[in-house]
Amino acid sequence: MIIQLQENVSAQERQDIASALSSISYKGNDVKTQFGDYIICVGKKEFDIRGIGTLPGIKDIHRVSDPYKLVSKKWKVNNTVIDLGDGVTIGDGGFSIMAGPCSIECEEQVDDLINHLKENNVRIMRGGVYKPRSSPYSFRGLGIDGLKMWYEKARAAGIKIITEVMMVEQIEDMLPYADILQVGARNSQNFNLLDALGQVDKPILLKRGVSGTIDELLYAAEYIFSNGNEKIMLCERGIRSYEKAYRNCFDINAIAILKDKTHLPVIADPSHGIGIRAYVEQIALASIMAGADGVIMEAHKVPEKAFSDGQQTLNFRQSSLTIKKMRKTFDLNLAMNSW
Amino acid sequence: MIIQLQENVSAQERQDIASALSSISYKGNDVKTQFGDYIICVGKKEFDIRGIGTLPGIKDIHRVSDPYKLVSKKWKVNNTVIDLGDGVTIGDGGFSIMAGPCSIECEEQVDDLINHLKENNVRIMRGGVYKPRSSPYSFRGLGIDGLKMWYEKARAAGIKIITEVMMVEQIEDMLPYADILQVGARNSQNFNLLDALGQVDKPILLKRGVSGTIDELLYAAEYIFSNGNEKIMLCERGIRSYEKAYRNCFDINAIAILKDKTHLPVIADPSHGIGIRAYVEQIALASIMAGADGVIMEAHKVPEKAFSDGQQTLNFRQSSLTIKKMRKTFDLNLAMNSW
Amino acid sequence: MIIQLQENVSAQERQDIASALSSISYKGNDVKTQFGDYIICVGKKEFDIRGIGTLPGIKDIHRVSDPYKLVSKKWKVNNTVIDLGDGVTIGDGGFSIMAGPCSIECEEQVDDLINHLKENNVRIMRGGVYKPRSSPYSFRGLGIDGLKMWYEKARAAGIKIITEVMMVEQIEDMLPYADILQVGARNSQNFNLLDALGQVDKPILLKRGVSGTIDELLYAAEYIFSNGNEKIMLCERGIRSYEKAYRNCFDINAIAILKDKTHLPVIADPSHGIGIRAYVEQIALASIMAGADGVIMEAHKVPEKAFSDGQQTLNFRQSSLTIKKMRKTFDLNLAMNSW
Amino acid sequence: MIIQLQENVSAQERQDIASALSSISYKGNDVKTQFGDYIICVGKKEFDIRGIGTLPGIKDIHRVSDPYKLVSKKWKVNNTVIDLGDGVTIGDGGFSIMAGPCSIECEEQVDDLINHLKENNVRIMRGGVYKPRSSPYSFRGLGIDGLKMWYEKARAAGIKIITEVMMVEQIEDMLPYADILQVGARNSQNFNLLDALGQVDKPILLKRGVSGTIDELLYAAEYIFSNGNEKIMLCERGIRSYEKAYRNCFDINAIAILKDKTHLPVIADPSHGIGIRAYVEQIALASIMAGADGVIMEAHKVPEKAFSDGQQTLNFRQSSLTIKKMRKTFDLNLAMNSW
Repeated sequence: MIIQLQENVSAQERQDIASALSSISYKGNDVKTQFGDYIICVGKKEFDIRGIGTLPGIKDIHRVSDPYKLVSKKWKVNNTVIDLGDGVTIGDGGFSIMAGPCSIECEEQVDDLINHLKENNVRIMRGGVYKPRSSPYSFRGLGIDGLKMWYEKARAAGIKIITEVMMVEQIEDMLPYADILQVGARNSQNFNLLDALGQVDKPILLKRGVSGTIDELLYAAEYIFSNGNEKIMLCERGIRSYEKAYRNCFDINAIAILKDKTHLPVIADPSHGIGIRAYVEQIALASIMAGADGVIMEAHKVPEKAFSDGQQTLNFRQSSLTIKKMRKTFDLNLAMNSW
Repeated sequence: MIIQLQENVSAQERQDIASALSSISYKGNDVKTQFGDYIICVGKKEFDIRGIGTLPGIKDIHRVSDPYKLVSKKWKVNNTVIDLGDGVTIGDGGFSIMAGPCSIECEEQVDDLINHLKENNVRIMRGGVYKPRSSPYSFRGLGIDGLKMWYEKARAAGIKIITEVMMVEQIEDMLPYADILQVGARNSQNFNLLDALGQVDKPILLKRGVSGTIDELLYAAEYIFSNGNEKIMLCERGIRSYEKAYRNCFDINAIAILKDKTHLPVIADPSHGIGIRAYVEQIALASIMAGADGVIMEAHKVPEKAFSDGQQTLNFRQSSLTIKKMRKTFDLNLAMNSW
Repeated sequence: MIIQLQENVSAQERQDIASALSSISYKGNDVKTQFGDYIICVGKKEFDIRGIGTLPGIKDIHRVSDPYKLVSKKWKVNNTVIDLGDGVTIGDGGFSIMAGPCSIECEEQVDDLINHLKENNVRIMRGGVYKPRSSPYSFRGLGIDGLKMWYEKARAAGIKIITEVMMVEQIEDMLPYADILQVGARNSQNFNLLDALGQVDKPILLKRGVSGTIDELLYAAEYIFSNGNEKIMLCERGIRSYEKAYRNCFDINAIAILKDKTHLPVIADPSHGIGIRAYVEQIALASIMAGADGVIMEAHKVPEKAFSDGQQTLNFRQSSLTIKKMRKTFDLNLAMNSW
Repeated sequence: MIIQLQENVSAQERQDIASALSSISYKGNDVKTQFGDYIICVGKKEFDIRGIGTLPGIKDIHRVSDPYKLVSKKWKVNNTVIDLGDGVTIGDGGFSIMAGPCSIECEEQVDDLINHLKENNVRIMRGGVYKPRSSPYSFRGLGIDGLKMWYEKARAAGIKIITEVMMVEQIEDMLPYADILQVGARNSQNFNLLDALGQVDKPILLKRGVSGTIDELLYAAEYIFSNGNEKIMLCERGIRSYEKAYRNCFDINAIAILKDKTHLPVIADPSHGIGIRAYVEQIALASIMAGADGVIMEAHKVPEKAFSDGQQTLNFRQSSLTIKKMRKTFDLNLAMNSW
C-alpha cells in the first residue's frame, strides 16, 4: 500500500496516520522525493483501506499488489516524464535517441560525434569516462577530466550528456557535468550505489543486470525512488544466454512487459543487445515496435579504431540511416496505438 | 563446397567429376531435390576450385565456409520462395500470416476460425491434431480424422493448412491433407523425422528447439534439404531462459541473424515467443522490423475455453487488429529497406 | 491418485471400480505393465479415498500430489531394481558402471574394450551404433550390423550392452541384441518413441534433455511406465548453460533431487556432463556422493583416435583408476547413509 | 608475462628492467602485495623471455597464457595457504568449514551458534551484518554494532569470523572485527570494491556472480591481487539456470576446473548452491569429491525462525551430521589423490 501525503501535511496529521497504521500492525517506510511525500507499507493483513484513506493529510492512497511499489503502474497510471531542460524530455510520448561512443577517447572524437549528432538533430550523447572492465589491465577511461572536456563541448553545442557512474565516491564530482547518470549492468544490484543515487536530483538510467530478471530491475528502481529520486529510466540491454551466435540476447519481451508494469520510461540498447554492428538497426527498430520510449546506441567515426566495443558500434553513415528509420518507425507505432 | 550439376548431366560427366574430387581426396555427398542435383563436399584441403568448376556437367560451384551448406546464403543468394498454390506464396517479399488455434477441437471451432481468417484475408490456418504433451495423461489431439474434417472445410474456403507432424509414421497419412508440415520445437533434432521429411515434396516449417542454437536450426534444415526437399521455412518461437516473467524468451536477435545467414523464409511465432496474450502483438510487430517474412500466431473465438495454450491465444477482435497492424508495419519496413 | 489392482481382479470388480470413479467425476487411465495393473486418475475434486480403497479387487491405493504419478516415490517407496540377468542388477543398493566408447567403430576396438572391462570387473558396456549428429554429413554409426558383431563378442564375455535407439523403427531389430536401450538427450521429448519403448519388456535408460527440466525427465519416464514398461533408469548428463568453460553443465542438484522424488535408479554421465577428459573423474565421484546409483562413462584405448567425443573419453589407465575410486567412494557413501 | 622482483631490488635495477620492457614495446603494470613485487606485462609481441629474465633484480619470470595472470596456476604452482592465525588455515591440504546463520540476529543466536561450532570443532563462523536485499523494504542487517557484538563473543571462544562487505565505505570500520571479508555474488563485478579490497591486508572470500563465468571470477580475483592483496579464496555458490526445481544450479564443474586453473583455495557454498535444506548435505559432499578445500554453509538453531534463507539452513542436528560426513569424505578424497 502506498499513501501519498498532501504537500502541506502537518506534523499532527502525520502522527495520526502513523498511529492508524500502527493500530493495524503496519509499519510505514517514509519516502520523500523531489515531487512528493509517501508512506510505503509492506504487510500482509487485510483491512479496509477507506478507514485510513479518509484521514486528513492524505492526498492519495492505493493498494499495490506488485512486490515493487512506487515504480508500479498500479500506483502511478501516468507515465513519468524526465525533463533534461532546454526542451529535451524523455518519456513524454516522443522518441529519444542517445548516441555516442563506448568510451570518450579524445577531443577530436568528441568534436566528430557532436557534429554527427547535430546533423541528425540528436540531443543526447552517450559516452563512458569510467569503464567497468573484466580485466584490471584494460583501459579504464579518461575519468573526471575527460568528462569535463566533454561537458564543455557538449554544452556549447546544446547536447545533453549521459555517462556511467561506477561508485558512490564518483557521484559528487560527476554531478555538475552529467545530465543523466547511468548505472551499468554489473552494478544493477549494487544497492549502496542505488541508495546514493536516490539522494541526488539527477535523472538515472538503470541498466538491467547481465542476467537480471525484470523484477530485479524494478526492485533496483524502487531503491532509487524510495531514497528520494523519481527521475528514473529503465534500460534493456540483452541478457546472458546459452547462444553463442551473438554477444547478449536482447530481451524484446522485457520491453513489452516493462511498458505494462511501470510508469518509468523504457530505453533499448540494441548495441549491447546483440553486439554485432550489422544487426543493431533491426533490433533498434524492433524495440520501438515493442514499445521503447527511446534508444541508446553506440556510434563512432571509425568503429574499427574505437578503444572498446568497436564490433557493435555504427559508423556515421549507418547511424544516420538508423536514426531516420527509427523516427519513422516510432511515428507509425504511435499512430497505430490509437487504432 | 557445393557443386550444382546441369539438368542433363551425363553418367560419364558425373563419373569424371567424382574422379576429380577423389583425386583431391574429397568425398562428395550426392543430393537430389525437387529442384536440383548437387554434390556436397566437406573437407579441409585447400585447392583451386576452378580446376573442378570448368568440368563439363557443372552448372555452378561455390565454396561455403559455413558449417551448414545448402541452406546458406553463401550458396544461394536469392531468397527461397515457397509456393502453396492458388496464389499463396511465402518468402516472395510479401508478408505471410498463419493463424488459428493451438489444437483443432471440433467442427464449430474450425468454422469460426475459417470465417475469421476470410474476414481478414488470411490464407493459411494453423492448428494441431497431434499434440506433443509433457504429461501422458493430457489431451493429445483429434488425430487424422480431425485433420480430414479440417481439410474439407479449409479447402472449400480456399484456406491452406499448416499442422504439426510428430513421427515418421504419420507423414504418409497426413500428406494429402496438409499444405505445410510443421516440426515442433521438441522434435527439432529428431533426425530421423527430418530425414523422412526430406523425402517428401511438401513445404516444411521447422521450429527452433526449446533451447536450440541458431546453428542447430540451420543444421536441422540442412538435414531436410540434403534428403531432397528444398521447401523449408525456419521458425523462431522463443528459447528457454532463467527469466520467469514469461513462458519463453523470444529471440529477436535470431530473426535478424537468420535473415542474413540463410535464403530460407523466416517465420516468427510470437504466441509461444512470449506466452502472454497481452504482449503477443508487440512481439509480432517487433519481429517484422527484425526481418521476419511472416508470423504464425494463435487465435480462438474464446481463448479462455481453448483446450490448450489459451493464455497466449488472441481472441478475434485482438487478432483482427494485430493483423492490420502487422501488414502496415511490414509495408513500412519494406519501404525503408530501399532507403 | 493411483489404484493398483489385485492380480486376479475380475471383470465385474473392474467395472465396479470404474463406476465408483465415474460417480466422483474421475476418469481413470488403465495401465498394464510387466509387473502390475494400475488405474491412474488425474483430477482435482477432493473426496474420501477410503470410499474407493475398500472396493474388492484393489491391492493398493494412494494419492500422489506430484504431477507425474507412477514414477513418484510418493507412490512406490521401495527403489526399483533393474535385473539384466546373469547377476547384473541396477538400483539394488550396489554400484553400477557402464563404460565404453561413444561409437562402436570396429571389431578390434570392441575386443580391446571388452578386455578392459573384464580386467576391471565391469559388467555393462556402452557404445553407439546409431549416432545422432548435428550435421547430416557426419558419421552416423555402424548400424544394426555393428550391433550384432558387438553383441556376439559381449555375450561371449558375459558383458551386457547398453546402446542408443533413435527411432521407433529401430526398436524391433535392436531388441534381441541390446540389454538396455538408451534414449538420448535430443529424444527425451520424442513422445512417440517413449510410447513405443513403453510397449517392450526391455530396460530403458532415459537421458535428460539438452535443456530439459527435472519434471520433464520424470514426465518422460511416466510416458514409458504408463505404456507398460516399469524398467526405467534416469540419467543426468549435463544441461545447457551460458558458461563456455565446458561442454555441458553437470547438474549435481538434479541427482540429489531425483533420488528423493522417484524410485527409479539414477545414473550419472560425467563424460557428457563436463566434456573434458581431465575432469571426468571428479564429476563421477561427486555424483556418487550426491546419490547416483551408477555411472555411465566414455572409455577408449586411444581417445585421440576415437570417431567422436574423444576429448571427453578416458584412456584405459584413467578409466581403471576412476573405476577403483568410484567403488571406494560408493562404499563410503553407503556406510555414511546409516550414520 | 609476470616478472617477480627480488626483495632487495634496487631503483636502478627496476629502471633497467623497465627500459628492457620498453625496448620490446611492453608496458608493465607494477603490483606490490604483502608477499612480493611483480611486474605484469600484457602484450602480444613474441620475444625471447631469457633476454629479460637474466637481468639483475629479477627473482622469477614466466609467460602466462591465461587471460588472468597472478591468480593462474601457470604462474604459481604451489597452492596459496590463507593463515587466519591461532592455528586456523585454509588451503593447506586440510578441510575448512565455515558455518553459521544467513543473518546475525541477536546475542542469543550468536551464543547458540558458537556453542554449536565448538561442539563440532569448527573454527570459522559465517554471518551477515550487511545484507544485500532485492527489495529496499526488507531487513538489511544489524550493521557494525552487530558485528562488534559478534566479534566479542567469537574472539572469546576462539572462533574466526567471515562476513560480507558491501561497499568501500564499510571496509575500514569492519576491518578490526572480521577475519575474512566476503564479496557477495551481486558484487562480484563491483570493480571499485575489488580494487579497495586489494589494498587491505585481510583475507577475502570472493563469490562467483549470480551468472558469472569462471573466467570472470578469476578476473575479479586478479583485481584484488593486482591491487596488493594475495589472500583470496574463491567460492562457487550456484548459477542461474532455467530450472525451477531449486534456487540456484550448483556448478560442480566449476569446482573441478577452478582447482586446476588457479592456486587459490576453492570453497563450496552448498546452501545457496541448491537452496533446499534437504539436499545441502549431498551437495556439500559432492563438492569435496570435486576438489573443494572447504565448505561454507548456513546453520541455525531453528531455521524456520531465521530472518532470511531459512529454507536452505540446516538445524544443529543436521549440521553436526553433515560436518562429520564432510570430514570423512575429505579424508577419503585426500587418500585417493595419492593412488
